[in-house]
Amino acid sequence: MKTIYLDNNATTQVAPEVLETILPYFHEFYGNPSSAHSFGGQVAEKVTEAREQVAGLLGARPGEIIFTSGGTESDNAAVRSALAAYPEKRHIVTSPVEHPAIRSLCRHLAKQGYRVTEVPVSSQGELDMDVYAKSLTPDTAIVSLMWANNETGVIFPIEKAAEMAKDKDILFHTDAVQAVGKIPINLRNNAVDMLSLSGHKLHSPKGIGVLFCRTGLKFKPYVIGGHQERNRRAGTENTAAIIGLGKACELAALRMKEKNPRVRHLRDKLEKGILEKVPHTKANGSTAPRLPNTSNISFEFVEGESILLSLDAEGICASTGSACSSGSLEPSHVLLAMGLTPTTAQGCIRFSLSVYNTEEEIDFVLQKLPPIIERLRSMSPLWTGHQRA
Amino acid sequence: MKTIYLDNNATTQVAPEVLETILPYFHEFYGNPSSAHSFGGQVAEKVTEAREQVAGLLGARPGEIIFTSGGTESDNAAVRSALAAYPEKRHIVTSPVEHPAIRSLCRHLAKQGYRVTEVPVSSQGELDMDVYAKSLTPDTAIVSLMWANNETGVIFPIEKAAEMAKDKDILFHTDAVQAVGKIPINLRNNAVDMLSLSGHKLHSPKGIGVLFCRTGLKFKPYVIGGHQERNRRAGTENTAAIIGLGKACELAALRMKEKNPRVRHLRDKLEKGILEKVPHTKANGSTAPRLPNTSNISFEFVEGESILLSLDAEGICASTGSACSSGSLEPSHVLLAMGLTPTTAQGCIRFSLSVYNTEEEIDFVLQKLPPIIERLRSMSPLWTGHQRA
Repeated sequence: MKTIYLDNNATTQVAPEVLETILPYFHEFYGNPSSAHSFGGQVAEKVTEAREQVAGLLGARPGEIIFTSGGTESDNAAVRSALAAYPEKRHIVTSPVEHPAIRSLCRHLAKQGYRVTEVPVSSQGELDMDVYAKSLTPDTAIVSLMWANNETGVIFPIEKAAEMAKDKDILFHTDAVQAVGKIPINLRNNAVDMLSLSGHKLHSPKGIGVLFCRTGLKFKPYVIGGHQERNRRAGTENTAAIIGLGKACELAALRMKEKNPRVRHLRDKLEKGILEKVPHTKANGSTAPRLPNTSNISFEFVEGESILLSLDAEGICASTGSACSSGSLEPSHVLLAMGLTPTTAQGCIRFSLSVYNTEEEIDFVLQKLPPIIERLRSMSPLWTGHQRA
Repeated sequence: MKTIYLDNNATTQVAPEVLETILPYFHEFYGNPSSAHSFGGQVAEKVTEAREQVAGLLGARPGEIIFTSGGTESDNAAVRSALAAYPEKRHIVTSPVEHPAIRSLCRHLAKQGYRVTEVPVSSQGELDMDVYAKSLTPDTAIVSLMWANNETGVIFPIEKAAEMAKDKDILFHTDAVQAVGKIPINLRNNAVDMLSLSGHKLHSPKGIGVLFCRTGLKFKPYVIGGHQERNRRAGTENTAAIIGLGKACELAALRMKEKNPRVRHLRDKLEKGILEKVPHTKANGSTAPRLPNTSNISFEFVEGESILLSLDAEGICASTGSACSSGSLEPSHVLLAMGLTPTTAQGCIRFSLSVYNTEEEIDFVLQKLPPIIERLRSMSPLWTGHQRA
């Protein structure tokens, strides 16, 4: 059975060009880039090139790129650095729709005595900018807001929010894990101080990420040890993955204009098709600015988990929310924050596309999904109740 | 020019069997193991298998294996967990010959008010067990001692040291990054509470490591976010690298008896050859229990950096100390702790072998090295001064 992979916000396949690029770095050019010999030195040169490629996609300087093990580590490092650099400040501003890497961390910090403000979002998942403005205080050590939401694709006005923080001399971090490679980002002329990205969301290997850290910023390392990353992140460089991420960033920059409109077309076709063919459905966050690849759809009167299982039986991969939240049977905190009821939130499915999806795949989903929902509803007490009412 | 790689304590090549094993996990089975669909589930099964393979090599239980991004993160996580779990305890016991992942971290913690005791070592790099015994106090939160030294290969009596800590109810961590795969380790019946290992030191990819954390231990996560690793280490699993590490551990277990004696033979041949052919040389730590693959040799009256460059010109890779310390021109802290003078310490070279080295390579080094030293000495004011004296 063919796999139709519509779960690209969870993880993506490594691009063939990236895989080809990294292969020699496992067993041929496997030297440690920190070694003094030229066998290591030649790898160090490729790491330098990768740093430039990543910086290129972000409009950053190579020296502002710190390689980490992934988005979660970058998020942890950003917040911990701000708190260590400004120990007298005890307040963190964030939102209720952040990824667990920020949200769980903030909850942990709240237990340790930090004050955490979660700026609310609208029913479309948009940040309440008035509350945000009021939340910024002299005691605020850091703002951390995601650039684009992993579950709905809703884009926050990060440049504006960063500017507002800067006006009050507050550090601004953004988790841009879902945004990088999907929408244009240029850090050269904005007020973002720190930015997290994750390689495996943009067709590089897993286990590699970046913390962008603006020149001049007071940074306190999170992982302490050797001199790697100019004393900002210790540990032997994950060379193959770094070189792969560089290539993936180069590809993403090239594809941004050319391929993302096609992704948007397929997403729109999928979403429109589902809303037309399946009654009692709604696309969450669809009137807000949104990533081109993400569609989050409520299917009333049916459980998301049951839909996933039925889709899985057809080879279609989707999700109910963040893979990082799976295992818990709680309804999505993102959708609850947007005002959905727990019952409705538990009937939502996220479809997330990539440049590798095809028109045929979308047609296949639009053919398979409506009867699945119909069948599940016919077995659902919620649906029977609704029909009787 | 053929590369003769004698820097395997810095990093190793990925074993061909490992590379073959991991390849499909980049672009074919690339699902997120935390995903609910079977495309992710099949990867989760391979992660489970890898966890069993790693546990197998260590004599641990699969549930005691936490995958991290590498040895440095594991070291940081172990120490931070102990301090978070026992906040009333403010004392750390370690040694002056630890890897920077522990040593720099402890120095950082000392600045934050923790008391750090460095138990001294002998001229052979052996731990002073009397001082160690006296250093253990009711205020001690954790002991962290490396199993085998990365620069000299000297093995600490970790099982005994862990037992002594256990007798006083003190947590015991060991950085076993250089020991795992080189000497037999069985955690089932010893008192080690936590152990760090790094994949790229035993022929798995870079960017993957393990923190062994004994069942029942009070563990406080270092990287906070999603539910991965049973809430002990957040972040999308680095699946290909995890699966590769599993395979590498399986290989290491198979090779332990069969291939390590050959590595020891080659190391001994190299060391004996150098000591015989080159006057004014000494093998550091050679009368202590030692890893089978490591030889650290002092070449009096000459700079280590110059030796490295000359070896490099012949395609021979070695190092002056830890790759993680390179970039600094300081003499090795390990050799200074063993009582070498700064001048002698700066004339030391570490050769570290692997199962992939051959007799011919060792013969080549033994042919090339003596004239290199002779030439360098002839240009050295230290040597000229010695000859006149």
